[in-house]
Amino acid sequence: QIDSARLWGSIHETAQFGATAKGGVRRLTLSREDKQVRDWFRKACEDAGLEVHVDALGSQFGLRKGRDMSKLPVGIGSHLDTQPTGGKYDGILGTLGALEVIRTLNDAGIETEAPICVVNWTNEEGSRFAPAMMASAAYVGDFTTDDILSRKDAEGTTVGQALDGIGYRGDKPVGFQKLGCFVELHIEQGPILEAEGKTIGVVDSGQGVLWYDGKISGFESHAGSTPMPLRRDALATLSEIVLAMESIATKHGPNAVGTIGEAVIANPSRNVIPGEIAFTMDCRSADGAIMDALDRDLRAAIAEIAARRKVEVKIDLVWRKPPTHFDPKLIAAVENAAKTLGYSSRRITSGAGHDACNLNTIMPAAMVFVPCKDGISHNELEDATQGDCAAGTNVLMHTVLAIAGV
Amino acid sequence: QIDSARLWGSIHETAQFGATAKGGVRRLTLSREDKQVRDWFRKACEDAGLEVHVDALGSQFGLRKGRDMSKLPVGIGSHLDTQPTGGKYDGILGTLGALEVIRTLNDAGIETEAPICVVNWTNEEGSRFAPAMMASAAYVGDFTTDDILSRKDAEGTTVGQALDGIGYRGDKPVGFQKLGCFVELHIEQGPILEAEGKTIGVVDSGQGVLWYDGKISGFESHAGSTPMPLRRDALATLSEIVLAMESIATKHGPNAVGTIGEAVIANPSRNVIPGEIAFTMDCRSADGAIMDALDRDLRAAIAEIAARRKVEVKIDLVWRKPPTHFDPKLIAAVENAAKTLGYSSRRITSGAGHDACNLNTIMPAAMVFVPCKDGISHNELEDATQGDCAAGTNVLMHTVLAIAGV
Ligand SMILES: NC(=O)NCCC(=O)O
Ligand SMILES: NC(=O)NCCC(=O)O
Repeated sequence: QIDSARLWGSIHETAQFGATAKGGVRRLTLSREDKQVRDWFRKACEDAGLEVHVDALGSQFGLRKGRDMSKLPVGIGSHLDTQPTGGKYDGILGTLGALEVIRTLNDAGIETEAPICVVNWTNEEGSRFAPAMMASAAYVGDFTTDDILSRKDAEGTTVGQALDGIGYRGDKPVGFQKLGCFVELHIEQGPILEAEGKTIGVVDSGQGVLWYDGKISGFESHAGSTPMPLRRDALATLSEIVLAMESIATKHGPNAVGTIGEAVIANPSRNVIPGEIAFTMDCRSADGAIMDALDRDLRAAIAEIAARRKVEVKIDLVWRKPPTHFDPKLIAAVENAAKTLGYSSRRITSGAGHDACNLNTIMPAAMVFVPCKDGISHNELEDATQGDCAAGTNVLMHTVLAIAGV
Repeated sequence: QIDSARLWGSIHETAQFGATAKGGVRRLTLSREDKQVRDWFRKACEDAGLEVHVDALGSQFGLRKGRDMSKLPVGIGSHLDTQPTGGKYDGILGTLGALEVIRTLNDAGIETEAPICVVNWTNEEGSRFAPAMMASAAYVGDFTTDDILSRKDAEGTTVGQALDGIGYRGDKPVGFQKLGCFVELHIEQGPILEAEGKTIGVVDSGQGVLWYDGKISGFESHAGSTPMPLRRDALATLSEIVLAMESIATKHGPNAVGTIGEAVIANPSRNVIPGEIAFTMDCRSADGAIMDALDRDLRAAIAEIAARRKVEVKIDLVWRKPPTHFDPKLIAAVENAAKTLGYSSRRITSGAGHDACNLNTIMPAAMVFVPCKDGISHNELEDATQGDCAAGTNVLMHTVLAIAGV
């Protein structure tokens, strides 16, 4: 059994780095607050006897030796960055839970056969730089390191500059730390476990993701003197796209969602009809055929709206992540650990993307979910109980022990 | 006849203050560029022999003596501030046209019976600070000077701070310069004169304006893991409001327009459902009953949308300007001047608001319109011909001579 109070203490101690007035965390990737939590995490790993290295994209790897160093390490961990108005658990539970597993094994004097590697992946959230799960995507070869280093945030700062800014451009090449498999603990970020009164979600699959950048070019003109029929209003165009997205996702539901999270009017003014808007779109489904249908329907709807309104709409697909099907053997290991420990559980699909989804494309991976209050995430009100966090961490530890061998 | 080349030269010389790459002007009220054009204008007025004073809200008044100084001056002028992506003529033609009238009278050695006062009103555009036509509204007593001085821009800078920042908080109280009447020359900002091949618009009325500040409070949550039916999406709510506004204005048309020009998502992120949006609304009609209907229909539509989507929407009416009916005698004077000079003309309603609409509430006022290319305004592509600008300025001068007496 892990030390529930110590885990809870770590979660609340690190929540100070970017704490918001509403009890959440604002810790955008590679920000000053991210540096603070990274420094804390490095020291905690070293204090726990791990050998810590940082790769060229800033991901932190803390290695605990195994009896048989010819075996690839079992990877565990998650991320410590948050959304602009994020919570205290998303990513953090999985990273500090991994640290707690190491601390517990140390206290119990348990040596494993295979080594264990704790990881804090850079920019899982994808809020400052696209795509989400950025560093793990480069790790599995979906993008080159140079491509990722050149990605820019809204202010035009590149990933490379941001890494240098906080001193976290590591000296190890991406992929230097080989892993044999990866297990990630996370809050569910959805309402199912809580609603069904289950403690553990055994994640067997994850939704695929489509991310688009969009730009609408209408025509700026005077709000008072431009007759309604002569307008080429970029905001009215966006409004139709938002509602089309909503109805297309609903039509393909329940196994589909669609969101427009960002929309910025260029040079806004009360008495000017908006002429130009930049926006983003996020569509998801656990079913590849539905993802294709979402893409097709959305493009058709946008083309119709643009033509009717005599406005130009450009859509760029900037990221496509296919649905994830986790490794059957690891899924069984998680399920077994939950059972052995006496926790209620159910199989579940992840609505959110996770680094484990990327790793699963080149190695066996799996995930452990615990309930979060009202399914709320990506919100400062995100909440989870100490008991559930401890339960998930226990399942993580017993899964690791089963895979790594004692 | 005014000096067409000199007028054209002034317009293009001052267009350098805030010139944009696309040939427009960005000269927000009380900005550095606004100071530059004000300094230029003060010097030009002084060089033309005018006695220049600045009031507590920064409006510039240049007085040309008349033979009978017991008579109230004939006011002429407009504004020199622009939209964020504005043109070279909106307001500028009326202000520099007024200067050109003075210069022409000087050259011809013409003394008028009543004095003439050239005015550059502060913040006509209303883009940086609400309401539009701010200084002339205070001049006619719609707002106190202190109220206006405390209005804030998006950065939180007050009008008072902005005035001090460019050294244009004048030593004269608002209203110090009494005027007997006011005549304003302006580009039409709509398509009618050009379409009908008319040179002069004799403005007999102006649309009323409703300005609102709105705020939507939904609930931020995860774009991937929040099922469509459980969302309280602020952007989908705004989208319905935008389209409701469009259809309500269209339904009450052709004599009604409605625009949402500003909308800002708080803490936007690609994978977060928008939780909070601040926005503005602008509704207009030349018919007071239609203005009331627009307000009523809009509030009803918003209440229905908010209730259905379980989202809070707050609407504040921040400005209400009733429709304008200009002074019949001054309208006739403008019409007569156009006829005498041999220009084709038609009566016309102003779609935009103007300082003359405010002044009309306490003194006789009127306006002269000239065509602008494709009716485009509040756009960097705004354009007008040298010939039309000169024609309008000639009509202004002859109207002034008829009122002031030679
Ligand atoms: N787990 C999580 O919130 N990931 C962020 C990436 C995404 O799914 O949008
Ligand atoms: N003339 C003009 O563009 N005025 C700005 C105020 C408004 O009508 O919106």
